Amino acid sequence: MKIVEIAKLVNGELRGEGSVDISGIAALESAGPADLTFVDGARALEQARRSAAGCFLVPLNSALPGKTTIAVSHPKVALIKAAAALLPARRPEPGIHRTAVVASSARVAQDASIGAQTVIEAGANIGARTHIAAGACIGRGVEIGADCMIHPRVTIYPDVRVGNRVVIHSGAVIGCDGFGYVFAEGCQQKFPQLGRTIIEDDVEIGANTTIDRGSLGDTVIGQGSKIDNLVQIAHNVSVGRHCVIAAQVGIAGSVRIGDYVMFGGQAGIGDRARIEDQAMIGAQAGVMPGKVVRRGIFVWGTPARPLPEYKKTYAQIMNLPKLGKKVDELSERVKAGSAP
Amino acid sequence: MKIVEIAKLVNGELRGEGSVDISGIAALESAGPADLTFVDGARALEQARRSAAGCFLVPLNSALPGKTTIAVSHPKVALIKAAAALLPARRPEPGIHRTAVVASSARVAQDASIGAQTVIEAGANIGARTHIAAGACIGRGVEIGADCMIHPRVTIYPDVRVGNRVVIHSGAVIGCDGFGYVFAEGCQQKFPQLGRTIIEDDVEIGANTTIDRGSLGDTVIGQGSKIDNLVQIAHNVSVGRHCVIAAQVGIAGSVRIGDYVMFGGQAGIGDRARIEDQAMIGAQAGVMPGKVVRRGIFVWGTPARPLPEYKKTYAQIMNLPKLGKKVDELSERVKAGSAP
Amino acid sequence: MKIVEIAKLVNGELRGEGSVDISGIAALESAGPADLTFVDGARALEQARRSAAGCFLVPLNSALPGKTTIAVSHPKVALIKAAAALLPARRPEPGIHRTAVVASSARVAQDASIGAQTVIEAGANIGARTHIAAGACIGRGVEIGADCMIHPRVTIYPDVRVGNRVVIHSGAVIGCDGFGYVFAEGCQQKFPQLGRTIIEDDVEIGANTTIDRGSLGDTVIGQGSKIDNLVQIAHNVSVGRHCVIAAQVGIAGSVRIGDYVMFGGQAGIGDRARIEDQAMIGAQAGVMPGKVVRRGIFVWGTPARPLPEYKKTYAQIMNLPKLGKKVDELSERVKAGSAP
Repeated sequence: MKIVEIAKLVNGELRGEGSVDISGIAALESAGPADLTFVDGARALEQARRSAAGCFLVPLNSALPGKTTIAVSHPKVALIKAAAALLPARRPEPGIHRTAVVASSARVAQDASIGAQTVIEAGANIGARTHIAAGACIGRGVEIGADCMIHPRVTIYPDVRVGNRVVIHSGAVIGCDGFGYVFAEGCQQKFPQLGRTIIEDDVEIGANTTIDRGSLGDTVIGQGSKIDNLVQIAHNVSVGRHCVIAAQVGIAGSVRIGDYVMFGGQAGIGDRARIEDQAMIGAQAGVMPGKVVRRGIFVWGTPARPLPEYKKTYAQIMNLPKLGKKVDELSERVKAGSAP
Repeated sequence: MKIVEIAKLVNGELRGEGSVDISGIAALESAGPADLTFVDGARALEQARRSAAGCFLVPLNSALPGKTTIAVSHPKVALIKAAAALLPARRPEPGIHRTAVVASSARVAQDASIGAQTVIEAGANIGARTHIAAGACIGRGVEIGADCMIHPRVTIYPDVRVGNRVVIHSGAVIGCDGFGYVFAEGCQQKFPQLGRTIIEDDVEIGANTTIDRGSLGDTVIGQGSKIDNLVQIAHNVSVGRHCVIAAQVGIAGSVRIGDYVMFGGQAGIGDRARIEDQAMIGAQAGVMPGKVVRRGIFVWGTPARPLPEYKKTYAQIMNLPKLGKKVDELSERVKAGSAP
Repeated sequence: MKIVEIAKLVNGELRGEGSVDISGIAALESAGPADLTFVDGARALEQARRSAAGCFLVPLNSALPGKTTIAVSHPKVALIKAAAALLPARRPEPGIHRTAVVASSARVAQDASIGAQTVIEAGANIGARTHIAAGACIGRGVEIGADCMIHPRVTIYPDVRVGNRVVIHSGAVIGCDGFGYVFAEGCQQKFPQLGRTIIEDDVEIGANTTIDRGSLGDTVIGQGSKIDNLVQIAHNVSVGRHCVIAAQVGIAGSVRIGDYVMFGGQAGIGDRARIEDQAMIGAQAGVMPGKVVRRGIFVWGTPARPLPEYKKTYAQIMNLPKLGKKVDELSERVKAGSAP
């Protein structure tokens, strides 16, 4: 792809030689003459001077003398567009692999691709151009939309609904039983886990993540939300749209989460908590059961509190040696003063 | 199933029309005329007035005018019983799927069900009515009892013992090597991991949970204990009977756990700690290595301490601004007082 | 194996009857007359007096009257050596199982062993004596060296590089996409994840652990490092040599880790942090994004701080009731003093 074509694609302003061919994408430090790279911030611009990249996506009004640049308002977004054109994702061949075990009542779109060693159970429905990769197990009655990528060894339990353009990474388990027991007659009795899991369009789910089905209602992951690896989402949780959930987060039962909520890694949310739109949960934070985190608030720590409060308390703790010393001095002075 | 039959099954007191047919189970808010639901607590009773459910399992002495109710001492337990009768778990067809790879020296009960794409290695023994679902790998010499449900893509390493009525969810790995190394000659040398993992009767294990084998002794999960998703149980751990371990808990090597112990999500237990019967470990708590948590005590925080102590310290920390102010005022006063 | 042979193998000093046959290895409490065991520390020596083991590996200059002992400088290391000779790991039969799906362009060493229900994709390369166990999925272009053990149901994404003598436990996912999005046009846009994952020689990776590929650069796990179960390692992380990473640790993007670093369980490392050689990260600690942990320093808590600092602060917090009381007394005294 010629640089001039890339410039046109990302709607950017080309400076330099547009006829050079670009075939790859690389980071500033490793890019070569056939690579496109991007510059984001002043430090990167400095680094870019020493980079051998063939072409740089740079912010508007930034100068990189002697280099071929394409100026755009958002270089990272431009790189995403360029990457899609330069290095399109490999399309697996449509069809059902000879080793796949597909129930006769399952429906598989003609241009879907069903990988080796897969199992598609009765009544499942696989949409157009969707790829079920090697070793995945798709349960009875599961519905998967169009253009999904189900990576190797994913398990989807019966009756789960998956929208369009959903990506599920290897080892993820969707729709497993929620963790609900009632203690009676000396032992834990399993409460029915009869609900569904609904994954809306454009969701991405990380490797070895687990998402439980609802017990009586449903568990729902809203449109466009992105979930990292090893995340646990319990029964009856509702995640809104365009949320970002980092690795190893745990969300307990019946938590309600709004839109555009962000979770740092290893955060934990107690059952029945409510997280409003655009809230942010810091890494390793612990939101107490039943708590409400208000719209747009950033909370941190366990128990999680708004960041300014947390910081104030932390500063006071750090100040304890000084406070102790002050009290000691005061004590000395009072003793001395009261001495006749 | 007619309501009158359900009333008889759960040994409850029917009020209303017993001849209506019930075919499903649902939550109060989504239940329709053919659904059974349950009422647990005052708030739910209020909600139930607006529910369209065909029949309500209610606590004794609670009134729901105009609705068909079955009064029982424990509605949630009654619902569990009714669900088992109304919606019995689908029994997979017995037999060995044509794509299963079963070693000739493995023994599989005649009425067991071995799913597609499974592997059962030499000397393994699969009990009566047990279902090994698609893609599961059962190692050499593994013993699995009767009426177990091994979900898709579970791995059981060689020589693991699994009791009766055990449920293991998809992606769980049982009997993998413990994490033991000795640093010598400039690198980490692996210590032998030769012990077994023993899963007793009625245990349930969550999706993608990992339970190590013992190094020289065994790792044991006691009868009736329930383990959620993404839990890590290290080598030589002994978990007692009827424990409940929430998601993402981590239990380090050689920890000893009594009966009826409860773990909140993401808690961590240091190696060689001992947790006595009926203790409770709060979510995200961290029990220090070698510590003892006494019978029935609830601990929280890191390092984990009994809840009342934790709360007292927390209150004192929250009181720091006030304390600081008090010291400042005192200081002013002393200065003023000592001024001639 | 005769005791005298074991003594020779571990280069130890035999005391007692060398002609006895030893066939197993066991812990002190469960060992029988045909078992070898080891003694490490004074308490174990006491316990050893009551053990029925046939032979004891003991530290130099320790007496165990009436028992057959082999004195060595490091009994645990000697046990590792003896175990390798006594109980050599079962070598799977070389060859490709009839149910394996191996792409015609994949290269598999003649003495490699490819298990049942596996998938080896185009251009992959499997080295000498390497065992790919049941249900594993090896992606397009993956390179795996010699003498590796890839346990059942591992997934390796395309283009990952795995060195020699690497062990990967069941359910681990290597080379999955990193978690990188740019928010634009109202939704999260996926940033390209085009880099590789490089696993160097002698690495061991635990069950259900996930290691992302690099976004533009690579993710690297250095030679001899050991990683426990359910660990998350994000894109572009670099782990040095001979590190030890306990279960459920999470390492965010672009973190740089030196050699011989130790991580306690459930620790979390923020993105772009740098951990220098021989540092130790305590269990559940949280290292803030961009922080540097200096060579050999032990940090603990969230935010993680050097242990002595953490302990000092903790002591001050525990001292708060005393401080409050002191201030109250002082206050009383000042009031009384200023009263005329």
